[in-house]
Amino acid sequence: MSDTEARKQFVEDLTDQTDDFSRWYNEVVRKAQLADYSPVRGSMVIRPYGYGLWENMQRLLDRRIKETGHQNAYFPLLIPESLLQLEADHVEGFAPECAWVTHGGREQLEERFAIRPTSEAIIGHMYSKWIESYRDLPILINQWANVMRWEKVTRLFLRTAEFLWQEGHTAHATEQECLEEVLRMLEVYRDFVETELAIPVYPGKKSDAERFAGAQDTYTIEALMKDGKALQAGTSHHLGQHFAKVFDITYQDEQGKRQFVWQTSWGVSTRLVGALVMTHGDDQGLRLPPNVAPIQAVIVPIWRKDADRSSVLEFIAKVKAAVGKDVRLHVDDRDQYSPGWKYNEYEMRGVPVRLEIGPKDVANAAVMSVRRDTRGKESIPLANLAERLPVLLDEIQRSLFEQAKAFRAENTVMVGTKDEAIAHFGAEKRGFVAMPWDGSAAVEGEIKERCGATLRCMPLDPSPFESIARPNHRVALFARAY
Amino acid sequence: MSDTEARKQFVEDLTDQTDDFSRWYNEVVRKAQLADYSPVRGSMVIRPYGYGLWENMQRLLDRRIKETGHQNAYFPLLIPESLLQLEADHVEGFAPECAWVTHGGREQLEERFAIRPTSEAIIGHMYSKWIESYRDLPILINQWANVMRWEKVTRLFLRTAEFLWQEGHTAHATEQECLEEVLRMLEVYRDFVETELAIPVYPGKKSDAERFAGAQDTYTIEALMKDGKALQAGTSHHLGQHFAKVFDITYQDEQGKRQFVWQTSWGVSTRLVGALVMTHGDDQGLRLPPNVAPIQAVIVPIWRKDADRSSVLEFIAKVKAAVGKDVRLHVDDRDQYSPGWKYNEYEMRGVPVRLEIGPKDVANAAVMSVRRDTRGKESIPLANLAERLPVLLDEIQRSLFEQAKAFRAENTVMVGTKDEAIAHFGAEKRGFVAMPWDGSAAVEGEIKERCGATLRCMPLDPSPFESIARPNHRVALFARAY
Repeated sequence: MSDTEARKQFVEDLTDQTDDFSRWYNEVVRKAQLADYSPVRGSMVIRPYGYGLWENMQRLLDRRIKETGHQNAYFPLLIPESLLQLEADHVEGFAPECAWVTHGGREQLEERFAIRPTSEAIIGHMYSKWIESYRDLPILINQWANVMRWEKVTRLFLRTAEFLWQEGHTAHATEQECLEEVLRMLEVYRDFVETELAIPVYPGKKSDAERFAGAQDTYTIEALMKDGKALQAGTSHHLGQHFAKVFDITYQDEQGKRQFVWQTSWGVSTRLVGALVMTHGDDQGLRLPPNVAPIQAVIVPIWRKDADRSSVLEFIAKVKAAVGKDVRLHVDDRDQYSPGWKYNEYEMRGVPVRLEIGPKDVANAAVMSVRRDTRGKESIPLANLAERLPVLLDEIQRSLFEQAKAFRAENTVMVGTKDEAIAHFGAEKRGFVAMPWDGSAAVEGEIKERCGATLRCMPLDPSPFESIARPNHRVALFARAY
Repeated sequence: MSDTEARKQFVEDLTDQTDDFSRWYNEVVRKAQLADYSPVRGSMVIRPYGYGLWENMQRLLDRRIKETGHQNAYFPLLIPESLLQLEADHVEGFAPECAWVTHGGREQLEERFAIRPTSEAIIGHMYSKWIESYRDLPILINQWANVMRWEKVTRLFLRTAEFLWQEGHTAHATEQECLEEVLRMLEVYRDFVETELAIPVYPGKKSDAERFAGAQDTYTIEALMKDGKALQAGTSHHLGQHFAKVFDITYQDEQGKRQFVWQTSWGVSTRLVGALVMTHGDDQGLRLPPNVAPIQAVIVPIWRKDADRSSVLEFIAKVKAAVGKDVRLHVDDRDQYSPGWKYNEYEMRGVPVRLEIGPKDVANAAVMSVRRDTRGKESIPLANLAERLPVLLDEIQRSLFEQAKAFRAENTVMVGTKDEAIAHFGAEKRGFVAMPWDGSAAVEGEIKERCGATLRCMPLDPSPFESIARPNHRVALFARAY
């Protein structure tokens, strides 16, 4: 088999989603060159195409984080074991999955360091040094960083030993301001994920069993993947005064009295790349939302005779000039691959729009556009392209969101009782089940044990579920989850 | 002492550079809130003001890296010990200063992992999997990441166990292309550091004794700090085929023959923040080049009577609207600090321009600008501000560069012989000494041993030193260095 044939087969051999979703996922992530396995157990390599996607996500989220008054900073990768152990729930939650540094150079260290699984401990320690008076509050800091959790079972992007994320850490004078911040950042996440990633989410509150180790309350946005499993896409924690008390983070209030601060933390990670793949992908590969796609439109030149080559390439130069810098455009003029091969490759990689340009198009002074999401074709005159292409990209962005919303609606059921929920998961094993819940940990535990479904959240907006509303109950969404 | 008095003293107590430069440096970095010590030995916290500076540097360098055809990616933090040991010089250079992970969760690992001190090994391993044919070359990848070197003696930004950097790693079909890439990136660094950081540098080649562990040749840009010590501000390595041979990175050429690739790697780090501080700072604190300053101009409102307050604040709103988004403007309207206190604080933090706005300025429809670099004052009418302020910032940027160049010229001497070089360092201990060098390691070693001065580089452009040119010799620059 030649090199070219081998590559062609590589692209064509994609497992169907319905045959084996998990296998489809692993294949598409590698075939689209988002990521690759590494020689380090559970750690992945994020390849340029995957990292370009992450950079676009970072840029759009970082802007929102700064617009809400936060500044970025950087804290140490290593956390002394003694610091991590100060908050009891926190250490219980994270210590079993820490990677431990025991030697520096040729010497054994006196104290072990954990590679940060999250940074509440080290940041809490610094805040106790920086905060003196009410004038120093609020502190609104975010960090973009790598973190590590030594997981037993790993999946590219979804669960890796090392991953990239941002973690916000804020300190406030009052519980009211603290709670406002928790909900503000949850809304930033909802807006970012729905607007830019075209993934519909339910914002809500976690149950006690599911909250972050060390938090008073955890809020979440929950998405639904195409195999019917839920995915926690971002969390915002109300830390209360738990960390303030163990790290002694106090301020002098206007009356000169020492008070403990109130804290939040919130984060999203490269896991969102996995969510993007599993929300929008199909049997031909990725379908990337234009707002974050590294390549928004790819130009594939077509010629049979060498004589056509120069006129096609000249026309492409005009197309590039007309489109300008507003669209992330890529021209694939490689000779060694056929147009058909390129169509398959860019479908696999989820490029939202393909522009085919052959001698006929040159003659008509137009390009043939093909949408990745619907495969809809449209000949666009060169004269209209600068105006039409951005609009087309917006249409695709909206269409992907609507498709995902429709899928979620089809896969969300409302039940009145625990037994109905259990019956549903027995038959279907997929989707969200909305159920009135009285807060009983026993009910939550029984559903988890019998169906493998966890309480994903209590939606902040219960109005879509009002038909199942009951006094002294809250609506809770259950699902099997990543 | 009240909180406010304590803070005032904190700002005023800055050691003079001439009294103790090293102490001045440590103080200014902390007083300007660029960074702070952490509870982790040798690791620092980069505070929002310091990180904002780094983000501006990243943005300006990342643009240049992408414009020269590179893409960003992300490789694992951990490197298996066996991989690191494949290249003999490389492991000898780095293994003694690695932090080692020996435990994952509660289990001891079968093989230790180093926290990356640099990523040639792990990236070389991946390139051996990705590269098959000449069509896959060149590979032009950059990574922004944290790295760790377990140093015995550390200094904020200059030498810390953990630091942030970018590392480019490229693979090419021919040595010619490889060398072109090495010099292209060295020129990117020179342009970035001189244009954006206003730090003049000598680009040149390292001697065998000073080159990177595992490289065939190392190129560097060398800067001069205000205490007369040199600082290596960036390096670009010609790796030859050393790593290709041990990691088996080969490609099939057009004739179907297996060939080893040629590789480069190049990097700059948060050390550049230290270079910025030590190139431009003075006895009042930092002086930041406008191109990278987190705040380019700070507005300090002035009023004696409460009656003036609203008219001053109204005028400031007009000033903000006039300046628009082209200038990074900050208004410090905190009531608890006096204008004089604020002047000191923003001088300490190196903000390039202060705009003082009081009742008299409001009456004249003008602002009083004060340059940080020269303290030059200029009343700028509101009507001219949008035009004048960016020009003023450019003038400051150029002025800082010219001041640094003049300082370097005053502190560079040319000598004809080794003995003259040794005599100079005996008397002065500072600055660059340019000397004709025949390539003798013994001469290089003697100067190092007797004067503590190392061979910084052989300048790519020897023309400034032509008066000392000798046949069969190259010009070499010696200096004591960070």
